[in-house]
Amino acid sequence: MAILSDAATEVLVPLAAAIGIAFAVAQWFLVSRVSLSPSSRHDDKDALLGESLIEEEEGLNDHNVVARCAEIQSAIAQGATSFLFTEYQYVGIFMSIFAVVIFVFLGSVEGFSTKTHPCTYSKGTDCKPALFNALFSTVSFLLGAVTSVVSGFLGMKIATYANARTTLEARKGVGKAFITAFRSGAVMGFLLASNGLLVLYVAINLFKLYYGDDWEGLYESITGYGLGGSSMALFGRVGGGIYTKAADVGADLVGKVERNIPEDDPRNPAVIADNVGDNVGDIAGMGSDLFGSYAESSCAALVVASISSFGVNHDFTGMCYPLLVSSVGIIVCLITTLFATDIFEIKAVKEIEPALKKQLIISTALMTVGIALISWLALPAKFTIFNFGEQKEVSNWGLFLCVAIGLWAGLIIGYVTEYYTSNAYSPVQDVADACRTGAATNVIFGLALGYKSVIIPIFAIAVGIYVSFTVAAMYGIAVAALGMLSTIATGLSIDAYGPISDNAGGIAEMAGMSHRIRERTDALDAAGNTTAAIGKGFAIGSAALVSLALFGAFVSRAGVKVVDVLSPKVIIGLVVGAMLPYWFSAMTMKSVGRAALEMVEEVRRQFNTIPGLMEGTGKPDYANCVKISTDASIRQMIPPGALVMLTPLVVGTFFGVETLSGVLAGALVSGVQVAISASNTGGAWDNAKKYIEAGASEHARALGPKGSDCHKAAVIGDTIGDPLKDTSGPSLNILIKLMAVESLVFAPFFAAHGGILFKLF
Amino acid sequence: MAILSDAATEVLVPLAAAIGIAFAVAQWFLVSRVSLSPSSRHDDKDALLGESLIEEEEGLNDHNVVARCAEIQSAIAQGATSFLFTEYQYVGIFMSIFAVVIFVFLGSVEGFSTKTHPCTYSKGTDCKPALFNALFSTVSFLLGAVTSVVSGFLGMKIATYANARTTLEARKGVGKAFITAFRSGAVMGFLLASNGLLVLYVAINLFKLYYGDDWEGLYESITGYGLGGSSMALFGRVGGGIYTKAADVGADLVGKVERNIPEDDPRNPAVIADNVGDNVGDIAGMGSDLFGSYAESSCAALVVASISSFGVNHDFTGMCYPLLVSSVGIIVCLITTLFATDIFEIKAVKEIEPALKKQLIISTALMTVGIALISWLALPAKFTIFNFGEQKEVSNWGLFLCVAIGLWAGLIIGYVTEYYTSNAYSPVQDVADACRTGAATNVIFGLALGYKSVIIPIFAIAVGIYVSFTVAAMYGIAVAALGMLSTIATGLSIDAYGPISDNAGGIAEMAGMSHRIRERTDALDAAGNTTAAIGKGFAIGSAALVSLALFGAFVSRAGVKVVDVLSPKVIIGLVVGAMLPYWFSAMTMKSVGRAALEMVEEVRRQFNTIPGLMEGTGKPDYANCVKISTDASIRQMIPPGALVMLTPLVVGTFFGVETLSGVLAGALVSGVQVAISASNTGGAWDNAKKYIEAGASEHARALGPKGSDCHKAAVIGDTIGDPLKDTSGPSLNILIKLMAVESLVFAPFFAAHGGILFKLF
Repeated sequence: MAILSDAATEVLVPLAAAIGIAFAVAQWFLVSRVSLSPSSRHDDKDALLGESLIEEEEGLNDHNVVARCAEIQSAIAQGATSFLFTEYQYVGIFMSIFAVVIFVFLGSVEGFSTKTHPCTYSKGTDCKPALFNALFSTVSFLLGAVTSVVSGFLGMKIATYANARTTLEARKGVGKAFITAFRSGAVMGFLLASNGLLVLYVAINLFKLYYGDDWEGLYESITGYGLGGSSMALFGRVGGGIYTKAADVGADLVGKVERNIPEDDPRNPAVIADNVGDNVGDIAGMGSDLFGSYAESSCAALVVASISSFGVNHDFTGMCYPLLVSSVGIIVCLITTLFATDIFEIKAVKEIEPALKKQLIISTALMTVGIALISWLALPAKFTIFNFGEQKEVSNWGLFLCVAIGLWAGLIIGYVTEYYTSNAYSPVQDVADACRTGAATNVIFGLALGYKSVIIPIFAIAVGIYVSFTVAAMYGIAVAALGMLSTIATGLSIDAYGPISDNAGGIAEMAGMSHRIRERTDALDAAGNTTAAIGKGFAIGSAALVSLALFGAFVSRAGVKVVDVLSPKVIIGLVVGAMLPYWFSAMTMKSVGRAALEMVEEVRRQFNTIPGLMEGTGKPDYANCVKISTDASIRQMIPPGALVMLTPLVVGTFFGVETLSGVLAGALVSGVQVAISASNTGGAWDNAKKYIEAGASEHARALGPKGSDCHKAAVIGDTIGDPLKDTSGPSLNILIKLMAVESLVFAPFFAAHGGILFKLF
Repeated sequence: MAILSDAATEVLVPLAAAIGIAFAVAQWFLVSRVSLSPSSRHDDKDALLGESLIEEEEGLNDHNVVARCAEIQSAIAQGATSFLFTEYQYVGIFMSIFAVVIFVFLGSVEGFSTKTHPCTYSKGTDCKPALFNALFSTVSFLLGAVTSVVSGFLGMKIATYANARTTLEARKGVGKAFITAFRSGAVMGFLLASNGLLVLYVAINLFKLYYGDDWEGLYESITGYGLGGSSMALFGRVGGGIYTKAADVGADLVGKVERNIPEDDPRNPAVIADNVGDNVGDIAGMGSDLFGSYAESSCAALVVASISSFGVNHDFTGMCYPLLVSSVGIIVCLITTLFATDIFEIKAVKEIEPALKKQLIISTALMTVGIALISWLALPAKFTIFNFGEQKEVSNWGLFLCVAIGLWAGLIIGYVTEYYTSNAYSPVQDVADACRTGAATNVIFGLALGYKSVIIPIFAIAVGIYVSFTVAAMYGIAVAALGMLSTIATGLSIDAYGPISDNAGGIAEMAGMSHRIRERTDALDAAGNTTAAIGKGFAIGSAALVSLALFGAFVSRAGVKVVDVLSPKVIIGLVVGAMLPYWFSAMTMKSVGRAALEMVEEVRRQFNTIPGLMEGTGKPDYANCVKISTDASIRQMIPPGALVMLTPLVVGTFFGVETLSGVLAGALVSGVQVAISASNTGGAWDNAKKYIEAGASEHARALGPKGSDCHKAAVIGDTIGDPLKDTSGPSLNILIKLMAVESLVFAPFFAAHGGILFKLF
């Protein structure tokens, strides 16, 4: 038996979650000390003077600037809040219908009978009727959806709270601004990680009151939590992604290309919509996405464990190993955060990116120790894991290896992503160089870069899969995914930091603050661009592992023994599944394109009809642009969302579990490639443009300056990359995960009633 | 037993091939009657006057024009010939080494023993030693390579013979030019199809002298023919693709974009290289490619049949069913061709595209009857097919269904491809419309179009796979692929017609002929663009079926019973295999980009340094541009070629047949999508540009004219699409086929000695 007692586990998990939440609140308090109301500025200034600042301060006495920042911030916050509310309304209807579908489909498995039946794996135990599993699955589905909504919404609230404060702090220097942005990111990171863990933990304990000894039913129902979280995330990512990129592309095409005004210029009518987009797409969407990954990998691990020796022997501590890993992760990330905010101090621009990268290394190194510790404490020396019909013996050190390999594979993916998307290295510089011969060669080189950037991550994922699969079958893969996500609090802090800095820059520009402030926020933003790409790399890598684990759990649950590529049912699933990422990308890219065209028309119209707009005497109609982005994204997120949500249902019901297995495997292996290449191509184009703009080297200066032919070519590449890296690319993670978790939830139904078409013919 | 006797089969197959060759010679004779030497022009004109022409003739008396055309033609022909010779030299070395590898690897299976052993499937028969299988495999590999070289070379010779003749005929009207270009395409189509069939047939009969009753060994060795054909095709496609697109992109970027001179302007130094490229890439490369597909699908069907009842019972006619289908195909295509050249007459530009499309429908409809006939005549009413360890009973009508479904799936893919790439329909018009907001939205819409165009072809392929697999296992898939390729002679005629017209237009421009001639050749070329896309659709669809059939044959031969996605060895193969198309595309796209950059530098240099070049008084150095394209493509075709050729060897040797199965399946399901979307995206951009240039509708005129901002945006899209549609897209077919056929050839070796790495650990 494990060293850690069940009672200790019962304390440790909620304790870690509570510490995480407390830490987030503390960070929020620190951020809130930057005042946004001009009246209280005096105390603030006194406090600052007391600290004897070294860095140069400027504009600190300008009351107007502060008032303007507050005004812009409130416009952004209002736009974001109103969009999210509209989005949640529509998605709410969809989710309610889907909840009914879950209940009816799963309830029908045993013909809505209320009789218990002997369990499949725990011999001698009575399992609860399918009808109640259906009920609890529906409840946990809604719970997951609500938690996801809360995660995204909180993230957005914090980001729109922090953006103007970062701008104001930038007046005091880059270090101060960095700390504010990073702390705000940390608020979101820790709230999400802790909240996700806590809700899951509480739900398990409450469900246990009904399920008692029926752990199979308990953890099967809990899987609904992952499905709910991921379904919301899908709509959040797609809706937010379309919103943000329609506004961004629209604003750039008219503002930067046609009118030659800088980014975030207050004269551009789409500028508020653009800044709102960062918050609803990059912050709320990404928050929901990573929460979904986390919930799914936990659920995948739990459901596999429930039919292994942990579940059969009712070893609660062993069963909770996935939650304990996450708990340790929160503590490790807390320590890691202190390195950025308290232990080291940022004094110059060039220290920002290394500081963020250091976060990744520190958290990974500490986490390796943490995993070793918890594997030793919480796991028996030997235990068995369910492996497609047989039990496989695993040692605690074997499982440590699985988690650790996931964790380190994530780091490798992160570093490769950085290499291919940071303009400090030759790949992006080559792309920038290709701008010399125009936009076409820029695009050709950028696409080639994206394709190439797939190679090493795929090998890292393959090695991770092979080792963890060989050691502990699908459970190994699930915990490898958890390992990759165990430092999620730090990952999210770094990720959220980017859009906050981006917004801060926008606010500085719009508030008419001096060029030096903008330079500081730009420096923060450039580092944020690379870290955002790293974050996407993590999200994709973990999505691949998670969906494989869910796939394995689905196959076990559906009673499929073999998914044989040499069977016609499987091969057609494989071919069609591999096509889905393309279908989905076609929809999302076209949506962005179409919404951007509408935005361009509107921005052009305003420039042409509002007198004095270009001269700065007329005021643009920001609200109309916000409305266009909102309407377009709400309207256009439904078809891709429906494609993903309905595919497993249709395939499972009409073609059965074998074809569905093929579809899942096909979507997984093809989707990962499309997602990685799309994200990295987009990131590379963005940074190639920034490379030319910054002109930091001899080579870069030869290509620039802003407005040169090279730069124009680079802007075209950047614009093409926008929907690739922020809409279709990141949504693909969710596509592959969501289809897998949905299949898992509906597995009992498919196993009982699926494959109608093949049964008929 | 079948109605058709063995003796009749022995006659029918070579007879059909002979008729095909005779028809090709007759067509060539008709083309040759258009004289290129000014001296004999008088007789020619007399003949024409005798025909009482309705169409207006112009420039017929201009001796200088004819002489100029002849001169340009000879420059193009020289460039193409010298490139192909250089290419064949380098590839020859590679192929020789590879031949040795085949011999040594396969010979080592039984330790170079010369003893016979009992056959695996034909009980009671003695099979020849592995050493001799190795020898004959090597011989058929070299035979396939040589046939492929001959196919590509002959195609190029005919095309460079026909291009100037088409230009001259265009003086007499669009109908005359069409017939010349189409007849020349037919020469190539029929020569390739007949030659491929004949060589295979002769080889089988010669090999039989040694093998006698050992049909397993015989048809196993014959598979080398497919490998040889496809290996050559890979280098042909990649080398030719890089050549043609480097020249095209380089010529366009400086000529059209920077200097504002028309396409094919004789002042552009890269113009000869561009026209050479059409012949070595689109003609020679495509010829080798489709020959490879044809050879492989025949070999796949034969090797599966050899271990089924045909092989075991020594039913020669049944065994030859794949060859008989191809024989019928030649006759059907011959009749179809007459519809275009003799039965209907083209009188106006708008009749061209329908005439070409009619070819597809006529050949498909006739072929359906042909297949029914030959299935009834050549197959026993019932027979058994090998299905992974067991024998499955199939009826002759079942097999007819398999071939027919492949044939019709091809037609569907062709029509969908046309819908997405022809500017007569809304998808391309939408892309053109997106040019209003610049190159970025054009690219976004184009990428989305390519992704979307994957959907229906994949469903068509999936249905084809499901039906043929269910009816007749892997043999069903192999004959479905053959069905799709059975009208290859017509397909190739239509395909080759495009680049010939393109060249004809180039020659008209360079020879300084009047604008009206150029308009006529442009109309031919525009129709050719769409048919080229259709041809690529066919090539990809058939490649998917062929490689699946080869995969099945490989699995049977390697003794793998199940390719279980739930095994770690398979899943890592699947993930890595799905990545290979990206790796390969990254290489080829970057190669084109890099070679194009060199070309741009050279063209710019010439414009800047050669006095009077822009004014038309100086003469550009065409040869230097030809040299740059040649060197670049020879140098850059090696790495992608090596990737494809070495992957199966490395994976099979070190990781074993299970992982290799995963790699093949992954590359297949992912590669098909990348190939279709890349081809169609490129085709759509090309035709969106042509749509704006032609200005045939209100909408198109609003976007144009040439030189407008919209048009410039469209040119950027077209340039990006060039490497997608002509280099990486079509090469991917070969990637998936070649890896499968190579695995099949080396299967005995992998089964005996493969998976070293897993054996060690």
